[in-house]
Amino acid sequence: MDLFQALSTTSRTTLHRHKDRAQTDRAALHAVLDAGLICHLGVVIDGSPVVLPTGYGRSGETLYLHGSSANRSFRYAVDAPVCVEVTLVDGLVCARSVFNNSMNYRSAVIFGSPHLVTGEAERTEALRVITEHLIPGRWANSRRPTRKEIAATSVLALPLDEASVKVRSGGPSDEDEDYALDAWAGVLPIAMTVGPAEPDPLLREGIGVPAHITELETRASSLRAGLA
Amino acid sequence: MDLFQALSTTSRTTLHRHKDRAQTDRAALHAVLDAGLICHLGVVIDGSPVVLPTGYGRSGETLYLHGSSANRSFRYAVDAPVCVEVTLVDGLVCARSVFNNSMNYRSAVIFGSPHLVTGEAERTEALRVITEHLIPGRWANSRRPTRKEIAATSVLALPLDEASVKVRSGGPSDEDEDYALDAWAGVLPIAMTVGPAEPDPLLREGIGVPAHITELETRASSLRAGLA
Repeated sequence: MDLFQALSTTSRTTLHRHKDRAQTDRAALHAVLDAGLICHLGVVIDGSPVVLPTGYGRSGETLYLHGSSANRSFRYAVDAPVCVEVTLVDGLVCARSVFNNSMNYRSAVIFGSPHLVTGEAERTEALRVITEHLIPGRWANSRRPTRKEIAATSVLALPLDEASVKVRSGGPSDEDEDYALDAWAGVLPIAMTVGPAEPDPLLREGIGVPAHITELETRASSLRAGLA
Repeated sequence: MDLFQALSTTSRTTLHRHKDRAQTDRAALHAVLDAGLICHLGVVIDGSPVVLPTGYGRSGETLYLHGSSANRSFRYAVDAPVCVEVTLVDGLVCARSVFNNSMNYRSAVIFGSPHLVTGEAERTEALRVITEHLIPGRWANSRRPTRKEIAATSVLALPLDEASVKVRSGGPSDEDEDYALDAWAGVLPIAMTVGPAEPDPLLREGIGVPAHITELETRASSLRAGLA
């Protein structure tokens, strides 16, 4: 699929406010999803919304969501309308006036009805994608799941068909007359740091921190570079 | 209100899985809400869930949510069932097996039906609370909102009556037989850093970075200390 193909233009993925913050190509969507750690999964249960922090990973144009088979709320997402939101806060934007304070952020919202991944092969592949999303190299460096463990995990597949991406970056935007005020204005960048690694006290002697872990400790800088 | 009074025990705020991760006093709820930057507001529109990243602040047992009066989705939250979720990811927990990989986190979920704050005095106070939540000291160091600006802002008030808090901390928990594996295990702590401040290029000469901004740059360490 062409990465610069337009995202969906349904009414609920068309931004009505701050249209200048809309990103409309699929590469922008992928970048936000790949940089996030967790998503916020919204489902409807008995007419009320329920929002759950949820692990995920992306494979092409499919988002895999991960939960326990025993998770009641997760079951309500199967073949039902859901909303998945991923937001990265990149900075606190301090304007000269309270009203113009803002945040720099990258945010993706996806609508759809996920299906339960039932085949063992796709479920295993989805677990690999979700594992590698958080810690690239982890799949190859840990014990793979048994069939019993795979059976105890629910995986949902949500196509990235209906989505919107919103990004704010840069400095404050103040009212013309406020620039004369004796008030500081600027941006406080927010970044995520990973590490240093804390080995399990029960770790067998002689097992050093592997390369895929030390490489992840540089993740914060690549996250910040993502879409800015 | 007694901070150690129990949180609600309705069916949807009683944890059914990992009950050992439940925190049941109000101080734990306050700590998570005060440490978060944004919340994830779930509303139902035409039968489908919509999840919005949203600014907020807490005043006692009330959560104030902040949006533009022009925001369509925000209007659907008024006097309607909503779910507000705040999650802080504190670490990636690397187990010896893929199945036991986990995350350390602090998460709060609140259910209720917020009302629109209509009085100008309470709305002004709510904006102060929301501003101070992100950047303590900012209210006193920027131009206060005009009546027109206050009118252009919607504020919702959600009582913290029905809520749950879930926290995971510590190292990996592996299957007994996996401890003999030749696999690294441990925790990759995740922390948020704030700053260094980037002054607006349009800043008037002679305005230095104020104390309330430099103090915020130490926020990351206090965030990590929050509930661990």
